[in-house]
Amino acid sequence: MTALVYHERFLWHDPGSAASIIPAGEMVEPGPHSESPERVRRINSLVEVSGLGERLLRLRPRSATLDELRRLHTDDYLALVKRISDGGAGNAGVSVGVGPSSFEIAALAVGACLTAVDAVVAGTVRNAYALVRPPGHHALAGEGMGGCIFGNVALAALHARETHGIRRMAVVDWDAHHGNGTQAAFYEDPDVLTISLHQADCFPPGSGGVDELGAGPSLGKNLNLPLPPGSGAGAYDAAFERIVLPALEEHRPELAVLEELSGEATGVEDPFLPIFEGYGYQELQPHQAAVLDALLAAVP
Amino acid sequence: MTALVYHERFLWHDPGSAASIIPAGEMVEPGPHSESPERVRRINSLVEVSGLGERLLRLRPRSATLDELRRLHTDDYLALVKRISDGGAGNAGVSVGVGPSSFEIAALAVGACLTAVDAVVAGTVRNAYALVRPPGHHALAGEGMGGCIFGNVALAALHARETHGIRRMAVVDWDAHHGNGTQAAFYEDPDVLTISLHQADCFPPGSGGVDELGAGPSLGKNLNLPLPPGSGAGAYDAAFERIVLPALEEHRPELAVLEELSGEATGVEDPFLPIFEGYGYQELQPHQAAVLDALLAAVP
Amino acid sequence: MTALVYHERFLWHDPGSAASIIPAGEMVEPGPHSESPERVRRINSLVEVSGLGERLLRLRPRSATLDELRRLHTDDYLALVKRISDGGAGNAGVSVGVGPSSFEIAALAVGACLTAVDAVVAGTVRNAYALVRPPGHHALAGEGMGGCIFGNVALAALHARETHGIRRMAVVDWDAHHGNGTQAAFYEDPDVLTISLHQADCFPPGSGGVDELGAGPSLGKNLNLPLPPGSGAGAYDAAFERIVLPALEEHRPELAVLEELSGEATGVEDPFLPIFEGYGYQELQPHQAAVLDALLAAVP
Amino acid sequence: MTALVYHERFLWHDPGSAASIIPAGEMVEPGPHSESPERVRRINSLVEVSGLGERLLRLRPRSATLDELRRLHTDDYLALVKRISDGGAGNAGVSVGVGPSSFEIAALAVGACLTAVDAVVAGTVRNAYALVRPPGHHALAGEGMGGCIFGNVALAALHARETHGIRRMAVVDWDAHHGNGTQAAFYEDPDVLTISLHQADCFPPGSGGVDELGAGPSLGKNLNLPLPPGSGAGAYDAAFERIVLPALEEHRPELAVLEELSGEATGVEDPFLPIFEGYGYQELQPHQAAVLDALLAAVP
Repeated sequence: MTALVYHERFLWHDPGSAASIIPAGEMVEPGPHSESPERVRRINSLVEVSGLGERLLRLRPRSATLDELRRLHTDDYLALVKRISDGGAGNAGVSVGVGPSSFEIAALAVGACLTAVDAVVAGTVRNAYALVRPPGHHALAGEGMGGCIFGNVALAALHARETHGIRRMAVVDWDAHHGNGTQAAFYEDPDVLTISLHQADCFPPGSGGVDELGAGPSLGKNLNLPLPPGSGAGAYDAAFERIVLPALEEHRPELAVLEELSGEATGVEDPFLPIFEGYGYQELQPHQAAVLDALLAAVP
Repeated sequence: MTALVYHERFLWHDPGSAASIIPAGEMVEPGPHSESPERVRRINSLVEVSGLGERLLRLRPRSATLDELRRLHTDDYLALVKRISDGGAGNAGVSVGVGPSSFEIAALAVGACLTAVDAVVAGTVRNAYALVRPPGHHALAGEGMGGCIFGNVALAALHARETHGIRRMAVVDWDAHHGNGTQAAFYEDPDVLTISLHQADCFPPGSGGVDELGAGPSLGKNLNLPLPPGSGAGAYDAAFERIVLPALEEHRPELAVLEELSGEATGVEDPFLPIFEGYGYQELQPHQAAVLDALLAAVP
Repeated sequence: MTALVYHERFLWHDPGSAASIIPAGEMVEPGPHSESPERVRRINSLVEVSGLGERLLRLRPRSATLDELRRLHTDDYLALVKRISDGGAGNAGVSVGVGPSSFEIAALAVGACLTAVDAVVAGTVRNAYALVRPPGHHALAGEGMGGCIFGNVALAALHARETHGIRRMAVVDWDAHHGNGTQAAFYEDPDVLTISLHQADCFPPGSGGVDELGAGPSLGKNLNLPLPPGSGAGAYDAAFERIVLPALEEHRPELAVLEELSGEATGVEDPFLPIFEGYGYQELQPHQAAVLDALLAAVP
Repeated sequence: MTALVYHERFLWHDPGSAASIIPAGEMVEPGPHSESPERVRRINSLVEVSGLGERLLRLRPRSATLDELRRLHTDDYLALVKRISDGGAGNAGVSVGVGPSSFEIAALAVGACLTAVDAVVAGTVRNAYALVRPPGHHALAGEGMGGCIFGNVALAALHARETHGIRRMAVVDWDAHHGNGTQAAFYEDPDVLTISLHQADCFPPGSGGVDELGAGPSLGKNLNLPLPPGSGAGAYDAAFERIVLPALEEHRPELAVLEELSGEATGVEDPFLPIFEGYGYQELQPHQAAVLDALLAAVP
């Protein structure tokens, strides 16, 4: 069985206005921010309307504690987010709007990922899907980025290690953008294999190249697969078959975490493949395998 | 002929999210703020679509200067609004969200009212309508209130006096809420007759009673007509016929300024009566004259 | 314990665009329709965020069958709504937009009320709250009205009678508008006492006067309490104490149904008093709990 | 000087709800349609706020007459759109929602393009930009498509020919989607060179290949440049330099029409390059001005 960890409070995080992700300003008219509640709300609604919800175990998330957040984030950054959140509104990084109670909501988003890990480790479910907001994979130890406040998935892996003693893990991130925050969290950590499939040269700028391979003992334990815009199902199939699965097979993780912007999935199956939200994503075109072949050749 | 003073930039003022006017918070889900761009945008659009625009002279507003704003507001308050506006977002009073460039947009709203005064005084037009945002009639010298940043209409009257030497003026405010800021600006000033028709005991709480009559030499030069909820055209007719017009006749203003939340009207005719926006207003019910009679008896 | 009957599908009913409730047209710019998904979505979200959800039994609604809908509605009307709903979009009455799948969603809204009745009658819960959309109390046998497609609460009472053999019932409707559809359903039926508290002369126009008292054997079994605009907690207290409770006491219903636009409440307690949406409504004050206590005492 | 032809009424066209362009339905939650008023509203607002508006001549559009619409569209199709528009709401093709007064608004959009042509031909301005809604380049003679009701640009060219006697024309369409409607209008017409730059294999499906070259006497007078997703300024530069400019030079049009979804540009300069809306588009970079310079030189 699969668990779904979701909370209505995720809809209450208000990143402020923007023109998509460009901050409103003198020459930029305010409008809805890309990191919209609609992303998770529509998925949650579709889960229920489609009938999928009847086959899932809904789990109520707990909040992550301050000590759990400290596993990744600096005290200064945590204090900054808390101060802005209590004060009303402000920015905790580039395109990271923080509104009333955003600290608590972001801590609940992390907590949902911990709840997912706990349920999988306890064997309650075979896998779990954390449908959370704000997202997390761009957040760094001391800085938010791209709508991400706390590193949800990185903290999930750290929780699995510190609370459950799980050593070898893998994170596969197939959000359209590079999972730079997750990469940074484990860049020198050989126990956590991090793989990111993303649109080449998209966001963050200059991040996510094939040459970012991990450092020190973890060299080769970070894999980036920057796919050309327009890559479709064929490209993903080929990338998984030739790179992701062999790498997982070699790493032999005890726990795997899938990450995509529409949620944070824990476990090795993703029941949500059919319900990707198109919004904010490149539309994936079929059969760009030829382009991918060249890419594959470039990855060790 | 009538002038319309409007600028697209009025749509760019972002008061942040709220539940109507209640600030978003731990138990209040963020949503659209009542002080929405749609208020002026829909009126401007209707002016064009209805064909009314072809019979109006559109004037491009200038910004009010800092010195012009100082006629009403304290340096501390002006500095506060400027600082928040430059910093990105925050509050300049109860339910007064300030966003990027809100200082400049509010100064342009004031400027539109000055432009309207200039055009009427110069005789270019017989009257002028300033369709502006943010609104102004709740703003005090040192504090914003109820979505109002600067006192648009009070500053228009001060401009008429200081720049054009006009002495006797009247402000008639028929917004659904009490024009407390305009009242405060001229409470001891016998040259400016201030009259406010509004829903009794609505906003600001405890403000706008019939006993607020002006002070010192201006006693009797401030008139509040707090109408019961549901008052309709009959109530307004009676209030104008029995109170507003006699008071104007006695005061003999050289310039009259009408004020309502959908804009700020200068001059003594209002071409916009047929296009009231319903939003935020009590729906006005016909024939509550009986209730009004009692009210009239209470006003000296 | 109290049940909450809600379904995400209620958010998917699309009444089309309007200017509040005025249909868009040549001189009316399209905008959001008053009968917005936000009404029930915000309440459902607040139930969860406030923690109230943990003390409620969430029940999944079933759809009402065609035979169940026929208890109130004509075959012609049911066919009309089905045809528009399958075709895409159109109107099934004044201000009754029907969009894709609106027939099925409206049947689910009715079904949620039947589910609430079943749970109360079975004794699973002491009372139940059906948080549904589209609303129902304006709908007539052969015509939708004011956003209402099917008569949710009237159908709930008919279900209680025909399926569970309950004879004496009461419906108390405290939505701001007159419950004309519910009134019509039982206007000559002495077993169902119908009481509506509403703003006088509001909607539907000319409906809901004190002289509409029921007909034939049911004379005196329909009570309208048209309150003046602006009526607050005191008015409601007095109305309940002097009219509603004595009438309930005399009628001695086996089942009472409370109705307000934010949902359809079955049973005698309403756990939702503190979380009324302000939108367009008289705000109800918490100390009405005392009145409700008396109401509870009046129902066996 | 450059003219801008815009009307507030373009904001009033309501294509109904959708999930982006997917019609709402049983498993598709209603949401905002991609063909949103915000597209033209934000551009018009930015023109004013940036100060660009002060350097443009704003022209008020007239409506296209029925006879002018018949130059491209069949009587049956015109009657269908009129009937749906008068009736309230419905579809006039795939993803072509028609709402109240959409017929009249679409006729005004065509009329704005005719107004632009008239101003350029009369020499009042050197070029003109028609900022219109609904868009037009997918519309066929007897069928709407992709949000397009009438073929704005094709009708502009037909007007230039029939009213002004202009024979040789060129249409360059750089919207992200294939200009299939404009292509179809002139597919066998050697006097009108049609060129479309667009994302390959995007919309309409299967349309816009390099092998669609025109037919009969017009063979070689229709050029499609299907660019791969992610193509940027370099791709556009190369496409213009190697294909578009040589083709224009050879065709020697008396009038050139640029087309993109954010408006319909008539004449040879486009003053709007710096203010492209990012929404759904390849972002065009400012240094394309060099390419435009060459384009200008190619047109007498």
